[in-house]
Amino acid sequence: MPNGAQALIETLVAAGIDTCFTNPGTSEIHFVAALDSVPEMRAVLTVFEGVAAGAADGYARMAGTPAATLLHLGPGLGYGLANFHNARRAKVPVVSIVGDHATYHAGYDPPLQSDIETIARNVSSWVRTSRSAGELPGDAAEAIAAASGPPGQVATLIVPADVSWQEGAEAATARLPAAAPPVSPAAVEAIAKALRDSARTALLLGGVALREPGLLAAARVAAATGAKLFAERSTPRLERGAGLPAVERLAYWPELAAKQLGGLEQLILVDAQPPVAWFAYPGAQSSLVPDGCSVHELAPPAGDVPGSLEALVSALDAGDAQPTLRTASVPGRPEGPLTAEKACQAIGAILPEGAIISDEAITSAAALPANTAGAPRHDWLTLTGGAIGQGLPVAVGAAVACPDRPVLALQADGSALYTIQSLWTMAREQLDVTVVIFNNRGYAILDAELARLDEPVAGERARALLDLGDPDLDFVKLGGGLGVPSRRAETAEELMRSLQQGLAEPGPHLVEAVLPAVVSKA
Amino acid sequence: MPNGAQALIETLVAAGIDTCFTNPGTSEIHFVAALDSVPEMRAVLTVFEGVAAGAADGYARMAGTPAATLLHLGPGLGYGLANFHNARRAKVPVVSIVGDHATYHAGYDPPLQSDIETIARNVSSWVRTSRSAGELPGDAAEAIAAASGPPGQVATLIVPADVSWQEGAEAATARLPAAAPPVSPAAVEAIAKALRDSARTALLLGGVALREPGLLAAARVAAATGAKLFAERSTPRLERGAGLPAVERLAYWPELAAKQLGGLEQLILVDAQPPVAWFAYPGAQSSLVPDGCSVHELAPPAGDVPGSLEALVSALDAGDAQPTLRTASVPGRPEGPLTAEKACQAIGAILPEGAIISDEAITSAAALPANTAGAPRHDWLTLTGGAIGQGLPVAVGAAVACPDRPVLALQADGSALYTIQSLWTMAREQLDVTVVIFNNRGYAILDAELARLDEPVAGERARALLDLGDPDLDFVKLGGGLGVPSRRAETAEELMRSLQQGLAEPGPHLVEAVLPAVVSKA
Repeated sequence: MPNGAQALIETLVAAGIDTCFTNPGTSEIHFVAALDSVPEMRAVLTVFEGVAAGAADGYARMAGTPAATLLHLGPGLGYGLANFHNARRAKVPVVSIVGDHATYHAGYDPPLQSDIETIARNVSSWVRTSRSAGELPGDAAEAIAAASGPPGQVATLIVPADVSWQEGAEAATARLPAAAPPVSPAAVEAIAKALRDSARTALLLGGVALREPGLLAAARVAAATGAKLFAERSTPRLERGAGLPAVERLAYWPELAAKQLGGLEQLILVDAQPPVAWFAYPGAQSSLVPDGCSVHELAPPAGDVPGSLEALVSALDAGDAQPTLRTASVPGRPEGPLTAEKACQAIGAILPEGAIISDEAITSAAALPANTAGAPRHDWLTLTGGAIGQGLPVAVGAAVACPDRPVLALQADGSALYTIQSLWTMAREQLDVTVVIFNNRGYAILDAELARLDEPVAGERARALLDLGDPDLDFVKLGGGLGVPSRRAETAEELMRSLQQGLAEPGPHLVEAVLPAVVSKA
Repeated sequence: MPNGAQALIETLVAAGIDTCFTNPGTSEIHFVAALDSVPEMRAVLTVFEGVAAGAADGYARMAGTPAATLLHLGPGLGYGLANFHNARRAKVPVVSIVGDHATYHAGYDPPLQSDIETIARNVSSWVRTSRSAGELPGDAAEAIAAASGPPGQVATLIVPADVSWQEGAEAATARLPAAAPPVSPAAVEAIAKALRDSARTALLLGGVALREPGLLAAARVAAATGAKLFAERSTPRLERGAGLPAVERLAYWPELAAKQLGGLEQLILVDAQPPVAWFAYPGAQSSLVPDGCSVHELAPPAGDVPGSLEALVSALDAGDAQPTLRTASVPGRPEGPLTAEKACQAIGAILPEGAIISDEAITSAAALPANTAGAPRHDWLTLTGGAIGQGLPVAVGAAVACPDRPVLALQADGSALYTIQSLWTMAREQLDVTVVIFNNRGYAILDAELARLDEPVAGERARALLDLGDPDLDFVKLGGGLGVPSRRAETAEELMRSLQQGLAEPGPHLVEAVLPAVVSKA
C-alpha cells in the first residue's frame, strides 16, 4: 500500500488536480519522492514561495479548478501569504499543502518550528493538520471540497513529515463541488421591481459575473432598463474586447469612483461587495455608495451568479433586448520616445485574439482599458487583494492552465521586484508569456499619494523612499539572469517590434519599456 | 504638536533607534512624509519586505540594539515573516512597525484588509494595535522595551493610518532594558559540583554566550575541568578566529551531532536549548541528548549569561586557568578549477581582520569552519531559524550597523533567490559587502535528503525538483541588474582575485563561484 504522500497525490489526481506549484524542503521530501510513482501529477518548481502561491491563483482563474501548492513549514507559507491573500480575494480554489515537522518532533521546538495553523488562518477558513497517513487522504478530500466552494477558497492542509512517510494509506475520493444554490424567485422579482422603479440604478458586477454569460445577461438588463453596468476595481477574470458588453471598472482613486457612481439611487450587487475606497484619507468617506443610494444584492458569491442574472432577464422580459456590444477598434500604432500612454497604445495595437493579460502595471496601465476596449477578445486578470507581487506569478499559472493561449504580463518596475523569481519558472517550463516591465524608476502610486497629503510638501528624504532610480534597475539583465530572453525598448516602435517578436516566438520573453522617471529627484 | 507618525519617529530616535528598514505603502505614507521633520532617523529602502526583516536582524546582531522596520499591512508582514522567524530564533531586538487601514476603514473590508495581529503572533509575543495618536508614542515606548528584552524579541506595533495622521501626539520615553537577573549562587554551585563530579561533561553555548566574554570564561571552565565546549548549530553571532577559544558547532546531520555528543554524562546549557535534530527521520530519535546524559541549565536566555559563566569560573577557582586559544593559521592559496572546498579555502586565505561573515552557503560551506579557524578575528552570523533567505538581508543590516568593517555574504545559489533583492539596497546604500554566490546549480541539501530515504531511489521527476540548472542562473547578470558590480570565477585563482578586489574597493561586489553541479541530471 502506498505511503501517506503517495496516497495524497493519488487523491489529488483522482479529483482532477494534476498540477502542483512547489518550493519544497526536507519536510516535504517524501512528497517529492512520491512524484515518480504518480506520473499524472505535474510538479512545477518555483524558486520562491510567492511565485507558487500566485501561480495557483492564476491557474484557478483560468482553469476554473484548483491547483495544489506545496510549501515548506511556516516560513515558506509566510513567503506565500501575500499571494494567497490575493487568491482569497479572487475567490478562487487552491489546495495549499504545507509540510510540517513530524508530529512527535514539534514538541522539541526545533529551529523551524512555528504555528502554521495561525499563519494559514489569515487566508484560509478551512485549515487542518493531518494526524496520520490513514487520515491524510480523507483530509485531502475534504480540503479539495472546501477549496472548490462555491465560492472557491484557499484550503490549507498541513502534513507532518511522519504522516507523509507512514505506510498504509489509501487514496480517497473528494466530493464534487456542490452546485451553487439558485437565488429565490422572490429575491429576483424584488430586484426586477427596483430596476423598473428607477433608471438611476447600476449593477455592480464582480467575481464570476464578469465572465461572458453574466456579462451578456447583465447587458440585456441594462438595455431593457437603462441601468448602468460597473465592474468592481478588482477583477479576478474579466472577459472583454470586441463582441462583448462594455463594463466600466470602478476607479482606484475614491473621488473618481464617487463621480462614476454619482447620482445613483440604487446599486445592485452581483457577486460584489459594497464599494469602498482602497485606502482611507483624512476627511473622506470610506464607503463609495452615494448618500441616499440604496444597496441591494442579487447574488452573493456563494450563489448561482450567472443563473441569477438569467432569472433577472426573464423577470424583466428582457430576453430580446439587444445588449450593447463593443465593436472592433484598434488604436493606431504609436511612434517616438515611449511614454506610459504610448506603451498602452502599443499593447492595444498588437493584442492577439485570445490573449490573457495579467495586469500589475499599476499607474502605467491607466490608458490600457481605453486602448484595448475594442481589441480582439481577451481575459483581464487584475490585482484582487492589493498585495503587491501578483502579476508575474499569476501569469505563470495562467500560462500553465492555458498552454495554447498567449499570456501578456504587464508589470510595473516596483511591483515586479517582489516576485521577479517568476521569470525562472517561465523559462524552466518554457511558458508562452510575454512580460512587459514598465520602468518609470519609482513607486509612482506612492508619489501620487504623497502629493495628496495636506501637509507641507514632503521633502527629499520622503521622496528618496519612492525613488527606484538610484541605482537604476536593469530588467534586461534581471530577465537574462533568470533565463528569459530580454530586450529594452526606448521608443514605441521598438516596443511594438519586441512585443510582436515575443508573441510570435514560443517560450517566455521580456521587454523593458523605459518610461520617463516619475519621482522628481531631490 | 506633531502628528502620530512624527511622534512615533521621535520616540524611536529618543530611545536610540535611528535606523528603519522599510518597504512602505499608502497606509505608511504619513510615516514617510514625517521623515523630513526628524532627520535623525535613517530610513533604508528595501524593495522586498524579506530584506527589511532580515536586515533588522543583522543590524541587531551586530549593533546589540534594535532597528525598526516599517512594512505595509498583513501581506507586507507576510513577506517579512520568514526573516522575522529567524530574528525570533536569534533572540535579537526588533521593533516591527506595520501600517494598517484607518481604524474606521477596516470595517468596510477593503481589499487589503487582513488580521495583522494573527500573522504577527507567530514571531512576536508582544503585539499591539495602537488606537490613537495620543496613545501611539506610549505604545511605541512599550514596544521598544519589550523588544529590548532580555532576551531580545520582535515586538510588533500595528499603526492604523489615522493614528499616524492625527495631530496632537507627543514623543514618549522608553524604559531602558532591565539588566538581566543574576543566576543564583546556589545554581552556579550546583553546576560547579556537576563539573567536578565528572569530566564527561560539556557546555553547550548559544546566544550571547558565543561572544568573547562568555567564550573566554567557558574556556577557563573547560581548562580547569576537562569539560568540552560546543556551540549550538545556530549562532546569531559567534566571535572566532586567532586569539579566541575554539568552540565546535554541533553538526547539521543528527548522526554526526550524536557522535560529537557521544559518551557525555552531563550537558550544561548556557543560553542554549536541549539539542534536537533539525528534522525528524523515520526510526531516528529527535533529541540529540545521549541516553543517560543529564541536562542542566546554567543560564537561560533571559538571565545574565556572561555573568553566570564568570560566576562559574569563580566557583571553580578557575580564574588562573589558561584557556586554549586558537593560534593564527591561514590555509594555503588554492589553485585550479573551483570546488566548494577550494572556495572555502580561498575565503580562509584572504579573510581580513574584523570581517563579518553572513553564512547561508549551506552545503557549500562545509569546509569553511576548518579553513577559517585560525583566521584573523571575525564574527560569524548563521541561519538561526532555518527559514531560507536570511544571508543577504543579514549582510545588509550588519553593514549598516558596522560601516567600518568588511562584510562577507556567503550564499548558496538556491537560498540567494528568496531575497536576491537585497543586492539593490547594498548598491543604493553603497554598503561594503562582498557577496559570494556558491553556484552548484541545485538544492544540494535536498539532494542529500533524497539520498537518505529508505525507499527505492527517487526518479527523474523527483530529482528535477532539486535541479536549478535548467535554465542556469546567471548571478553576474542578476547582480548587475540590481546595481552591484559582479564577476564570475571558475578557478580558485579567479575567486581569490575577485574577493581581494571586492574587499579592497568600497561599496558592494558580487562574485559568482561556479562549482560542479550537485544534482545528477535525469
